[in-house]
Amino acid sequence: MAGSAELLKFCAMESCVDPSFWSGLASRKLDEYQLSEAPVEITGYLTASRHTEVPSQLLLTGSSFEGPGARSSQGSHALPGRLVNFNTQENFARADAKGQMREAAARIWADIRSGAAEADPSLLSRFFVLAFGDLKRYDFTYWFAFPALKPPAPFTQLACTPLSEWAPGGAAERIAAAADAWRGLSPGAAAAAAAGSLPPPPFCLLSVAAAGGEARALPLAEWEAGGGAAAAGAGPDGAAGAGPRLLVCMSDPSHLASVPGWPLRNLLLLAAARWRARRLSVLCVRDARGRCDAARSFVVDVNLPELPDGWGDAAGDAAAGAPDAVGWETNVVGRLAPRRVDLSNLMSPAALAEQAVDLNLRLMRWRAAPSLDIAALASARCLLLGAGTLGCAVARTLLAWGVRGVTFVDCGRVAFSNPVRQSLFVFNDCLGGGLPKAPAAAEALRAVFPSVSSKGVTMRIPMPGHPPENAAAAAAAEADVRALDELISDHDAVFLLTDSRESRWLPTMLAAARRKVAITAALGFDGFVVMRHGAPPAGDAAGPSAGADAAVPAGRRLGCYFCNDVVAPANSAVDRTLDQQCTVARPGLAPIAGALAVELLAALLQHPAGVDAPAPGAGGAGGGGGGEGEAALGPVPHQIRGQLSGFSQVCMTGAAFSQCTACSEAVLSEWRARGPAFVLEAMASPGALEELTGLSQLHAAAAAAEEAAEAAAAATGADGGGGDEEGEDWLEL
Amino acid sequence: MAGSAELLKFCAMESCVDPSFWSGLASRKLDEYQLSEAPVEITGYLTASRHTEVPSQLLLTGSSFEGPGARSSQGSHALPGRLVNFNTQENFARADAKGQMREAAARIWADIRSGAAEADPSLLSRFFVLAFGDLKRYDFTYWFAFPALKPPAPFTQLACTPLSEWAPGGAAERIAAAADAWRGLSPGAAAAAAAGSLPPPPFCLLSVAAAGGEARALPLAEWEAGGGAAAAGAGPDGAAGAGPRLLVCMSDPSHLASVPGWPLRNLLLLAAARWRARRLSVLCVRDARGRCDAARSFVVDVNLPELPDGWGDAAGDAAAGAPDAVGWETNVVGRLAPRRVDLSNLMSPAALAEQAVDLNLRLMRWRAAPSLDIAALASARCLLLGAGTLGCAVARTLLAWGVRGVTFVDCGRVAFSNPVRQSLFVFNDCLGGGLPKAPAAAEALRAVFPSVSSKGVTMRIPMPGHPPENAAAAAAAEADVRALDELISDHDAVFLLTDSRESRWLPTMLAAARRKVAITAALGFDGFVVMRHGAPPAGDAAGPSAGADAAVPAGRRLGCYFCNDVVAPANSAVDRTLDQQCTVARPGLAPIAGALAVELLAALLQHPAGVDAPAPGAGGAGGGGGGEGEAALGPVPHQIRGQLSGFSQVCMTGAAFSQCTACSEAVLSEWRARGPAFVLEAMASPGALEELTGLSQLHAAAAAAEEAAEAAAAATGADGGGGDEEGEDWLEL
Repeated sequence: MAGSAELLKFCAMESCVDPSFWSGLASRKLDEYQLSEAPVEITGYLTASRHTEVPSQLLLTGSSFEGPGARSSQGSHALPGRLVNFNTQENFARADAKGQMREAAARIWADIRSGAAEADPSLLSRFFVLAFGDLKRYDFTYWFAFPALKPPAPFTQLACTPLSEWAPGGAAERIAAAADAWRGLSPGAAAAAAAGSLPPPPFCLLSVAAAGGEARALPLAEWEAGGGAAAAGAGPDGAAGAGPRLLVCMSDPSHLASVPGWPLRNLLLLAAARWRARRLSVLCVRDARGRCDAARSFVVDVNLPELPDGWGDAAGDAAAGAPDAVGWETNVVGRLAPRRVDLSNLMSPAALAEQAVDLNLRLMRWRAAPSLDIAALASARCLLLGAGTLGCAVARTLLAWGVRGVTFVDCGRVAFSNPVRQSLFVFNDCLGGGLPKAPAAAEALRAVFPSVSSKGVTMRIPMPGHPPENAAAAAAAEADVRALDELISDHDAVFLLTDSRESRWLPTMLAAARRKVAITAALGFDGFVVMRHGAPPAGDAAGPSAGADAAVPAGRRLGCYFCNDVVAPANSAVDRTLDQQCTVARPGLAPIAGALAVELLAALLQHPAGVDAPAPGAGGAGGGGGGEGEAALGPVPHQIRGQLSGFSQVCMTGAAFSQCTACSEAVLSEWRARGPAFVLEAMASPGALEELTGLSQLHAAAAAAEEAAEAAAAATGADGGGGDEEGEDWLEL
Repeated sequence: MAGSAELLKFCAMESCVDPSFWSGLASRKLDEYQLSEAPVEITGYLTASRHTEVPSQLLLTGSSFEGPGARSSQGSHALPGRLVNFNTQENFARADAKGQMREAAARIWADIRSGAAEADPSLLSRFFVLAFGDLKRYDFTYWFAFPALKPPAPFTQLACTPLSEWAPGGAAERIAAAADAWRGLSPGAAAAAAAGSLPPPPFCLLSVAAAGGEARALPLAEWEAGGGAAAAGAGPDGAAGAGPRLLVCMSDPSHLASVPGWPLRNLLLLAAARWRARRLSVLCVRDARGRCDAARSFVVDVNLPELPDGWGDAAGDAAAGAPDAVGWETNVVGRLAPRRVDLSNLMSPAALAEQAVDLNLRLMRWRAAPSLDIAALASARCLLLGAGTLGCAVARTLLAWGVRGVTFVDCGRVAFSNPVRQSLFVFNDCLGGGLPKAPAAAEALRAVFPSVSSKGVTMRIPMPGHPPENAAAAAAAEADVRALDELISDHDAVFLLTDSRESRWLPTMLAAARRKVAITAALGFDGFVVMRHGAPPAGDAAGPSAGADAAVPAGRRLGCYFCNDVVAPANSAVDRTLDQQCTVARPGLAPIAGALAVELLAALLQHPAGVDAPAPGAGGAGGGGGGEGEAALGPVPHQIRGQLSGFSQVCMTGAAFSQCTACSEAVLSEWRARGPAFVLEAMASPGALEELTGLSQLHAAAAAAEEAAEAAAAATGADGGGGDEEGEDWLEL
């Protein structure tokens, strides 16, 4: 019987990978798979051929990672696949491709034998892809396989007839309509597809009435029930009696006349193995204008080989016993070799930069810090008070951490001495009197990374001891106080990077009042301090009872920059010699302190307690605050102090001072009650802060104690010693 | 007698300060005076009036700081002055100007009474200037005073006669010639002036023969000898007998007809006080075409007040008793107030930038580090191997330290992920495939600071385990080895900032062979190491006896980056997953490590032992190496290791390893003997390095020892333990 037939040929499968697939892979690789090379289940989408010139290709998109129901497109079938994505080019090159093919064949064969493939015919079209993505360059190497099991003897074809001829008259139209309905192309089915149901299987049966060609689709599993054994193999004009004819119907990706597509191979083997069929008529459905085209679709009558008993058996070892399979895709020049795609030229430069910047951050989670919450820092809006040496250093490190919202506040212009130490400025920024620093820094950040949202505000921060000179200046200062408060409110973290002590007072107070993260960095000649400010207790901040501490036990709240001082900040700008006016600091200090300030923020934002995170070994009742071990970047110190002379660095912790001139409840209450008027008073007379906080009394008491001690010493001859001083030594800043 | 005379008026003195004076002041302030406000002796230069429209001004130039003989200009007199340069604008504003004037008057009065002013008449024209220079802005505020002592009663003038009338006929010419000769304006005198003799005094006596007007100049001190008492006061046609007439002669800066210049005032008081003269004839010399102009010069006959006995006396308190003085200069709008000059607009922007950059460095010496040798670092030519994250950070910190010679070596192009972490690049550098990094970094440095001499060399450093692929590649590698050796030879310090272990091998060996300072910085995920390499013994480096250590005792030589390893560097680029290929490091690490690397170099270059400086607590015979205390920036550690997790930093010291694959004598000898051929061998087979250094035997011995220990353990039941490992733990880099 088979002798008179010619070999049946199949049109090879082709893949079509949308860039969204690769970007989906890149993103999952970075965040999810990381170092794993375990196979990932994916879905490919296939339709019947729609053009006479090109086959339909197996489409992979970003939704290929989201299961078969993720993408519904009329007439499209979802095929199951596996992606094996290797970590290195070398691993890809030495991948066990034959083993992979054997394994895939075994699964298909098992699904055929178990009946699973009848229940879900898409299992016949399993595919897999081996891949390696160089995510730094958006360069992907990959190799698709569409395993087709090899039968013991070739399939041959007896006849191949266009549907329009096979079922003349209205019969062909009715058969085509049934095929369309099965594929979800009928109007009612479209609604079902839109509702998110699974795509139709790629194969079905068509039962065609012998008279008139009335047709209806049946699942593959109904072969026996549909009368397959009897009906298979005869045309409508065949001699198989008056019963309905049973065709296998497939959405055929092939565009070649009389040559069915590759997926048919496994279906034929199923028919031979499972149905023991020796002859099968297959309707290869091809489309035109979104419907089955009876002129291009055709029925092919196939002779199937007889499978010997035990063929494809393997006791207990499915892989070893499965039929061989073929089906590696060729590359674009027709060779059996991997394909390669360089997506970088598809992407906009700005998008490439964004992806590249995120890459390094996301890679941190692979091995180094799996629990790192990158977004916690990247989404933080940071306010930088000062766009000088420290401001530039902080901004650059923030950028590298993925931070996208940076606002600078500065009142200066770029001077000739700046660019060599302030890494956001160049020589040309100094010409003509110099650009205003804050906007220039913001623009420089955008030149480094166009996706950053940076802003520069030219503003002089109101300071204690610097009274406004007249009414207009006072009004301006009041507006500045409000503007600064608003800026602090609009940001998540405030960096205090100015070069005088008193300019840190107002932002320290405002950040405390709003419980914002505040981080101070300050330089000496060869030392620095970087510290975070403790926040006052949360709760009804406006109420007078806010002093009663809820969240943080008394004594465990961390201090601010001013907590170690027993004098209010005052005008330090007068009477300074040149070396005191300029930043006379070893040049290495600013990059170190700036980087540490950002890393301190990074560590803090990873801590579950946020602004209230305890410092390691923090004082107070319980000693070391718990929970540091949980934070992805480790414990979060309160203060880091370093010296370049000796290259030493230590972490220290200091508690909040109840009479602090910047963050104590007395000061915060006054601010809440009186607002800018209070600040203007402090500008005019820093002593008011000492009165308010009781420091004046402390001074008086200390003086009295000293006098008493001196008197006692005079009486006893012992050394009197000085008054008590709260806290520890401070750097000369 | 005085009743018929009119008041004598004087033309006020004016100053003219050349910018070179201010730059001289700025430079001395920074390097020499620093915080001192002690008065500085300076010299002003004055000539007779040369124009009818403007007076001659007291000129101050850069040479005003160098003593009266520093500047010789024909006809110019050197006047002694004092500069009081204040540290702050506030100190300037509250300077005791009256006190300064009193003190200057006292000195002049003392010099008059002691005869010092007769011996050196320039003492009569002492001046002083109070100043404050804002060296950041090249903005100077200053106030000159030309103290003129007030007589007990005003000077009056009896007659004022042009010289040409006073001495008719040839007499005026002869007198003028005598005045010119005194002032060094005669041809012979010019030669003397050029030879560096002191400028002529601003006053002299002229003895004029009664008949014919023959004239000769005499020093003021010869008043009595010249017959001053008798001759003074009569014109050539006067009635004072036939003896020669004695005139006082002065180079008159005044341009006003019949009005002598300010300096005459103190001379007249001298005549009244010291000579007891009641009448004096003064020749006020003014010039035209470089010679005394008899038409503009004039003789004024002055009545001097009688000084009461004891006038201007002050027993033991010269200042209190001295006559009052006047003479503050007015500002440009004629008010008695300081003048101000903003020199910044005179300077080229590039020069301004240079000065500004040096300012901060020089200010370090005022208080913070008086013994700092700024030039030691600024003049160092630095070679940066790697223009990535670390290379950019190192280059920027070098720039801030004043370093002017920076060469980058890199083989990469700027990628989209670079700018946010590599501070010399911006987004636009990534377009079109990216600029080559090394030249782009060099150009970026120049954009920051135009005076830097930066260069970028695109070169791939030959590496062990990366054999050349063919003969052409081998030839290229050989050329690269020679080029790198030459680069290292041409620089003073080498920074090893590449991102693989094996790329550091060749530069480590080459730097050791040339005893150059080599500094390594390397990053892990949240740790870094920064270290300097010990240099091999100096001496006849090429000879085979170089192994005998002369300068540094055995065991005290510091290790290099490879001294802790017992395996040779090999190709680490194969088989790396994405997170291993990319710099997965906390963004703060690179700025910290880069800055520390430069500060380590800064400290090292301040150490008298340079590359051989011992590390604090270095091992070996003597323990802690001496002399650290002497270095301006403190002790110079060998290695600095830091962790961001925990924010810790420690210094460590490690000795050189006699079997090191990079810096041991065996390796250096081989390099000296075989040159690039040896490097090519190591590229092909890193094992050759292990053979050469005896590490292979060490491995074999360790394996044998382990086996023996295992056998022993098997026999005794004890735990065998591993082989010996040299040195300490290393970061995974």
